[in-house]
Amino acid sequence: MLIALLPGDGIGPEVIAQTRRVLEALSIDSLDFEEALVGGAAYKATGHPLPPETLDLAKRADAILFGAVGDPDCDALERHLRPEQAILGLRKELGLFANLRPAKLFPELADASALRPEVASQIDMVIVRELNGDVYFGEKGMRTTADGKREGYDIMSYNEDEVRRIARVGFETAMARGKKLCSVDKANVLETSQLWRDVVIETAKEYPDVALSHMYVDNAAMQLVRNPGQFDVIVTGNLFGDILSDQASMCAGSIGMLPSASLDNAKKGLYEPIHGSAPDIAGQGKANPLATILSAAMMLRYSLDHAQEASRVEAAVARALAAGARSPDLGGSMSTQQMGEAVLEAL
Amino acid sequence: MLIALLPGDGIGPEVIAQTRRVLEALSIDSLDFEEALVGGAAYKATGHPLPPETLDLAKRADAILFGAVGDPDCDALERHLRPEQAILGLRKELGLFANLRPAKLFPELADASALRPEVASQIDMVIVRELNGDVYFGEKGMRTTADGKREGYDIMSYNEDEVRRIARVGFETAMARGKKLCSVDKANVLETSQLWRDVVIETAKEYPDVALSHMYVDNAAMQLVRNPGQFDVIVTGNLFGDILSDQASMCAGSIGMLPSASLDNAKKGLYEPIHGSAPDIAGQGKANPLATILSAAMMLRYSLDHAQEASRVEAAVARALAAGARSPDLGGSMSTQQMGEAVLEAL
Ligand SMILES: CC(C)[C@H](C(=O)O)[C@@H](O)C(=O)O
Ligand SMILES: CC(C)[C@H](C(=O)O)[C@@H](O)C(=O)O
Repeated sequence: MLIALLPGDGIGPEVIAQTRRVLEALSIDSLDFEEALVGGAAYKATGHPLPPETLDLAKRADAILFGAVGDPDCDALERHLRPEQAILGLRKELGLFANLRPAKLFPELADASALRPEVASQIDMVIVRELNGDVYFGEKGMRTTADGKREGYDIMSYNEDEVRRIARVGFETAMARGKKLCSVDKANVLETSQLWRDVVIETAKEYPDVALSHMYVDNAAMQLVRNPGQFDVIVTGNLFGDILSDQASMCAGSIGMLPSASLDNAKKGLYEPIHGSAPDIAGQGKANPLATILSAAMMLRYSLDHAQEASRVEAAVARALAAGARSPDLGGSMSTQQMGEAVLEAL
Repeated sequence: MLIALLPGDGIGPEVIAQTRRVLEALSIDSLDFEEALVGGAAYKATGHPLPPETLDLAKRADAILFGAVGDPDCDALERHLRPEQAILGLRKELGLFANLRPAKLFPELADASALRPEVASQIDMVIVRELNGDVYFGEKGMRTTADGKREGYDIMSYNEDEVRRIARVGFETAMARGKKLCSVDKANVLETSQLWRDVVIETAKEYPDVALSHMYVDNAAMQLVRNPGQFDVIVTGNLFGDILSDQASMCAGSIGMLPSASLDNAKKGLYEPIHGSAPDIAGQGKANPLATILSAAMMLRYSLDHAQEASRVEAAVARALAAGARSPDLGGSMSTQQMGEAVLEAL
């Protein structure tokens, strides 16, 4: 099996390096790694954030382990050359439409959340975010109004097939967990959301065992602070999912801890930590590699059929934390490499 | 001076009734009240959520005190007949483009926030939300794709004038406070946001004393949980402002406490609590009227030139809380009327 390693920018290379060590230590037969440039790093070397070789490798691979993209040097570039276009391009080109983000507080890290411990300890949810549509991929541009003013515009839309396939992922995820699904939209204002809600309700007929509820996005943002323990699975569109999943992650403690999977309709996936490239601490050995290591565990489970090894990795992370492994974001002083070694030892 | 009272749906009438008592107790010369139906209540009586008489009263009045709209009985109505259209219509028809939402923890209520007291106590910010544009008011609808699928769409857009006038409100608000303005957008994905950012940067030249920063909306949702004390004034568009201001309010404790003002380019404004119609507790005397009473204080200050009376009302609310006034949302058992009376006594 071929794993594409795309370290990207900022702290990406550091966290990917430690994760590769963990994967190699599992001594899984015939696991091959191939690395390629992506994001600002690729732009600087080749003039494009997602060069053809990188896209080709991503297509050939069985799974993709992704670091992070984002580089302040590239802020002034035209949109299609910016690092972020690489991750958007991979999601779209590979049809990775389903983003799964589990958010759960590690009991060892109860102190890291800004929420009261009794609130934070209740968090155990998965956010299912659509990744291939919405205002992210609609027609967009700058134009001049009739009276000569500059105007920016972006078209938001979803069609019924797009909603149905992500709704099914939401229902399936709920079936495998607490059987509660909350669909988040803004149907009181947006037609895109009205279609979303209609289709989610239609799809619910296929899943009579799941308790479905609907929530407006503004209320969801409040409820994630007030009582995040009420959620089992949330399903939502690309834009609302971007906002709510980052918020939920932060409620669950350090953003350095949380993994994500972006899946196509077969078993292929791109796995990445939810944190970004953190240019301010890049190259200093301060990054927490656990979110990427936990993303690799998701990869073992969803794309590589190695559920047992996935659980081994997750257990090793928990043991390393229990033994006191703490990077700066967790209030400690261990380096990226020492964190990786703590997990290796626990394995 | 004429105040339009628009109680609306759910708990709206109950909280408006107590607020009117407080306003009357101030014995301000020549303060007149006129009441009209709005939202689901107006639809049920007249067939329209914003009847012409109501719009006319709102136009004639010097300020509008608004309860809440939203009624589950109306969920199946066509969009243009739903209660929410009343508030959207008032904002648009009256040119109320600037929504100001202060979020601050009342020290007496430190226990009501889901955030740790040491995090919540730092909150003292104003969110400035644009209310007349964005994906809320663009062309929208349902259509059929070339291959016969249902599709919902909404056009998001801002032009430079719309951004400039709300940016100025943001800068002015910051000038009157801590001189820090954070503009929130999603410029790494949206052209609407790119124009937003460009124009905010241009406008900054008029306010050299304000420290301007930019933040992506997903990061802002995280930072509002991690360290809300970092913010002084946030300025953002209609959709992101809807989400972030509700989130920030919840961080600051009970949503039953927080007022808002929606202002035009003169001094006219619509004042409303940020909570909704809460149909589940409507008519039971359980609603907390303090957010509406504090909204009336904002009205006295911004639209009626009675800053002193505004401060009196705010001080009375603080004293009532200090004396132990607590409605159910604050962990107590006082009724809406008892809460109103506690403020009257403190006056
Ligand atoms: C980098 C950016 C384009 C991206 C997004 O908005 O999807 C990121 O925030 C994410 O959530 O993966
Ligand atoms: C009722 C609804 C249309 C409204 C909005 O989204 O603006 C509300 O959520 C608000 O924030 O005032």
